[in-house]
Amino acid sequence: QINSDRLWDSIMEMAKIGPGIAGGNNRQTVTDEDGEGRHLFKRWCEAAGLEMGLDEMGTMFARREGTDPELPPVYVGSHLDTQPTGGKYDGVLGVLGGLEVVRSLNDLGIKTRHPIVVTNWTNEEGARFAPAMMASGVFAGVLDQADVYGHVDKAGKKFGEELERIGWKGSEKVGERKIHAFFELHIEQGPILEDEGIDIGVVTHGQGLKWLQVTLTGKEAHTGSTPMPKRRNAGLGMARVIELVHEIAMDYQPDAVGAVGHMEVYPNSRNIIAGRTVFTIDIRSPEKEVLDAMDGRIREGIDTICEALDIKYQIEQVGHFDPVTFDKGCVKAVRDAAERLGYTHRNIVSGAGHDACWINRVAPTAMVMCPCVDGLSHNEAEEITKEWAAAGADVLFHAVVETAEI
Amino acid sequence: QINSDRLWDSIMEMAKIGPGIAGGNNRQTVTDEDGEGRHLFKRWCEAAGLEMGLDEMGTMFARREGTDPELPPVYVGSHLDTQPTGGKYDGVLGVLGGLEVVRSLNDLGIKTRHPIVVTNWTNEEGARFAPAMMASGVFAGVLDQADVYGHVDKAGKKFGEELERIGWKGSEKVGERKIHAFFELHIEQGPILEDEGIDIGVVTHGQGLKWLQVTLTGKEAHTGSTPMPKRRNAGLGMARVIELVHEIAMDYQPDAVGAVGHMEVYPNSRNIIAGRTVFTIDIRSPEKEVLDAMDGRIREGIDTICEALDIKYQIEQVGHFDPVTFDKGCVKAVRDAAERLGYTHRNIVSGAGHDACWINRVAPTAMVMCPCVDGLSHNEAEEITKEWAAAGADVLFHAVVETAEI
Ligand SMILES: NC(=O)NCCC(=O)O
Ligand SMILES: NC(=O)NCCC(=O)O
Repeated sequence: QINSDRLWDSIMEMAKIGPGIAGGNNRQTVTDEDGEGRHLFKRWCEAAGLEMGLDEMGTMFARREGTDPELPPVYVGSHLDTQPTGGKYDGVLGVLGGLEVVRSLNDLGIKTRHPIVVTNWTNEEGARFAPAMMASGVFAGVLDQADVYGHVDKAGKKFGEELERIGWKGSEKVGERKIHAFFELHIEQGPILEDEGIDIGVVTHGQGLKWLQVTLTGKEAHTGSTPMPKRRNAGLGMARVIELVHEIAMDYQPDAVGAVGHMEVYPNSRNIIAGRTVFTIDIRSPEKEVLDAMDGRIREGIDTICEALDIKYQIEQVGHFDPVTFDKGCVKAVRDAAERLGYTHRNIVSGAGHDACWINRVAPTAMVMCPCVDGLSHNEAEEITKEWAAAGADVLFHAVVETAEI
Repeated sequence: QINSDRLWDSIMEMAKIGPGIAGGNNRQTVTDEDGEGRHLFKRWCEAAGLEMGLDEMGTMFARREGTDPELPPVYVGSHLDTQPTGGKYDGVLGVLGGLEVVRSLNDLGIKTRHPIVVTNWTNEEGARFAPAMMASGVFAGVLDQADVYGHVDKAGKKFGEELERIGWKGSEKVGERKIHAFFELHIEQGPILEDEGIDIGVVTHGQGLKWLQVTLTGKEAHTGSTPMPKRRNAGLGMARVIELVHEIAMDYQPDAVGAVGHMEVYPNSRNIIAGRTVFTIDIRSPEKEVLDAMDGRIREGIDTICEALDIKYQIEQVGHFDPVTFDKGCVKAVRDAAERLGYTHRNIVSGAGHDACWINRVAPTAMVMCPCVDGLSHNEAEEITKEWAAAGADVLFHAVVETAEI
């Protein structure tokens, strides 16, 4: 059994760094606040006797030695960065849950054969810099490090330069570590577990995702004196694409979701018809065929919409992962742990993307999920109970220890 | 005949202040650039022997004495502020056209019985601070000075404080001046004159306008893990309102126009369903009944849209003027001048709002319009020819001199 008070207190302590405006957090990746959160995590790790590693993507690795240091470590962790209006648990629970595994092993004086490494992956959220799960994507060899270093935020700042600026760019080459297995604990971010009153989600699959960044180019013109038939309205085009994405997602739901959460309008003046809009479509499905079909219909639809409005378009894919099937052995370790501990559990598909989805490509991986109130996440009001957190961390502890072998 | 080279050179000189990024201007109201533009205008006015006045709204009044100083002056002018991506002529032509009237009178040694006052009205565009035609609205007693002082821009800065900061808040009470007549020269900002190959628009009416600022409140949530039926998507709501406004405008066109050019999305992250959107609807018609009917249908439609999406709404009217009928006598002075000078002309309805629309409520007023290329305005590519400008200023000169009496 892990120490649920210590876990909870650590989560609350971390939440003081980069507070939001409504009880949550704004600790976006490679900001000063992210740096501060990393320092706190590092202090805790060192106090627990862990040895720190840092790679060129800024991912932190805190190692507890095994009795057989030659064996590849079991990894456990998630991310400490948040959305601009994020919750206190998304990612944090997984990192501090991993730390709690190690702290509990220390308390109990248990040694494992495999080393255990607690991990904080850089830029999981993808809010400031697309794509999401950036560092784990580079680690898994799916994303190119030089390429993502050049990705810019809305202020035009480069990811690589910001990582260096906050002082958390390491010298370790990315992706060279051998991973025996990886476990990630995360809040569900959806309503299923809470609705069904179930303690633990045994994550068998992850949804696939596409992020399509669309630029529409019409013509800036006066909203009052430009006759309706003469308009080339990029704002109206964006509105129609948003509706299109919604309709397509509704056609495929519950096997799909889709929305546009990011929109920019130029020049964004009350009496100027928008000459240009830039926005990102987010579509997801656990079925690759559905995801591809949605993608196709969206591209066709955009073409038709733009033709009718006499506007030009450009579509850039700024994020993508296929649906994921997690490792049978690791999933079994999670399920067995829940069973053994007497928690109610069910298989579940992750609606969100996670670092585990990328790491699963290079090492056996599984996830543990716990409920969150109202299924709400990516909202400062995100909430969980201490009991839910404890149950998740308990299952994580047992799955990790089982895999790391005593 | 005015001096068309001098007029053109002055316009080009003014365009150097607050240059845009694509050949136009970004000299938004009560910015440092606006201040600089005012200084240049003041220097020119003083060189022409005019006496400067400045009221509490920052409106500039440059007076050329009449032979009977007891007579109320004839006013002539427009505005020097621009859109964030504005053209070189919108407003500027009217102010510098007014200055050119005075410069030409000086050249010719002509004295008028009535004084002539060249005017630069503050914040005509309404881009940085709603509503448009702010200072002339206060002058006409339609807007409240204390109220508009408190209006904020996107950065939260107050209009009144910014006016003071740039050093252009005068001590003269607003609206106490007696106006014998007011003439405003402006580019059409629409395609009619150019399409028909006509030199001069004799503006008989102005369209009415409503600006409705809408706030939609849904619920921030994860784009991936929130099931479609659980969403309360304020971005989708905005998209539907944009389409609604377009449909309603199409129903009434050519007697109406409508669009949404200003949109804000919170928190504006790729993987967060928008919890809140704020945007401004711009609807216009020369018929008051049509404007009111559109307003009614839009409010009903927003209610229906929000009901279906389970989101809340708030509608605030941030700009409004009824359709305008300009003064018969002043309109005749414009038409007679065009006729006498041998320019082709036609009656026209202004699609945009102008300071003249407000001043018409307190003094006999009319407008002169000249064509602009492709009807394009509120775009840095806004363009006119030197000949069009000259014809407009010529007609302005004759209408003003006729009214100010030699
Ligand atoms: N878990 C999570 O919110 N990840 C961010 C990437 C995504 O949008 O799914
Ligand atoms: N003339 C002009 O562009 N005025 C700004 C107010 C409006 O939007 O009509």
